[in-house]
Amino acid sequence: MPLNQSDQLSATFSALADPTRRAILARLSAGEASVLKLAEPFDMSLPAVSKHLKVLERAGLIERSREAQWRPCKLSAQPLKQVADWVEHYRRFWEESFDRLDDYLKEIQAKEIKHGRKK
Amino acid sequence: MPLNQSDQLSATFSALADPTRRAILARLSAGEASVLKLAEPFDMSLPAVSKHLKVLERAGLIERSREAQWRPCKLSAQPLKQVADWVEHYRRFWEESFDRLDDYLKEIQAKEIKHGRKK
Repeated sequence: MPLNQSDQLSATFSALADPTRRAILARLSAGEASVLKLAEPFDMSLPAVSKHLKVLERAGLIERSREAQWRPCKLSAQPLKQVADWVEHYRRFWEESFDRLDDYLKEIQAKEIKHGRKK
Repeated sequence: MPLNQSDQLSATFSALADPTRRAILARLSAGEASVLKLAEPFDMSLPAVSKHLKVLERAGLIERSREAQWRPCKLSAQPLKQVADWVEHYRRFWEESFDRLDDYLKEIQAKEIKHGRKK
């Protein structure tokens, strides 16, 4: 049964909540790779890496070719677009807080100049 | 102990992997609110809602005022900026796949025009 949009987003976020899985995606952003190749940088058993790949595959974040015998893994970025769209809604909040910090720093600097404490 | 950047990102993704918690953030994007107010739209006990709020608070996604007696919750968007920065790295992948779909649709349309099958 295909996931609805909210379930899909939950599955994506859940799959991304692990540094090894994010490292695997980063590696795949440089091109497709076999499970053996993907396992190399990690101090981890092959079954442990396979388990992470299954989580990524279920979330639709990677695809595994059924043709070649080495079954290369490939990044599948569509769920990440959904993440980008979701987070975009909140952009004004972090931009606002940077603006406030910026105003605060300008204010401090102005006071220092006024009081002749500028280097 | 403060989380390192990778742990912070994992905590954020993990907190976001739940539709109720995302709905709470969406509600808070309209302004601060009490736990009672936040609980209203959900068919959920107050302790269950409180548990979700604790997860969001630990991930730094909300702040709870200690001053007012009703302890309003407020959105804290800094971890979401980190999500936006992380996902940005993959933008070219979903844009590429849209471009490919677009090329394919144009190709089909061109063939239809050529064969006089256009409506």
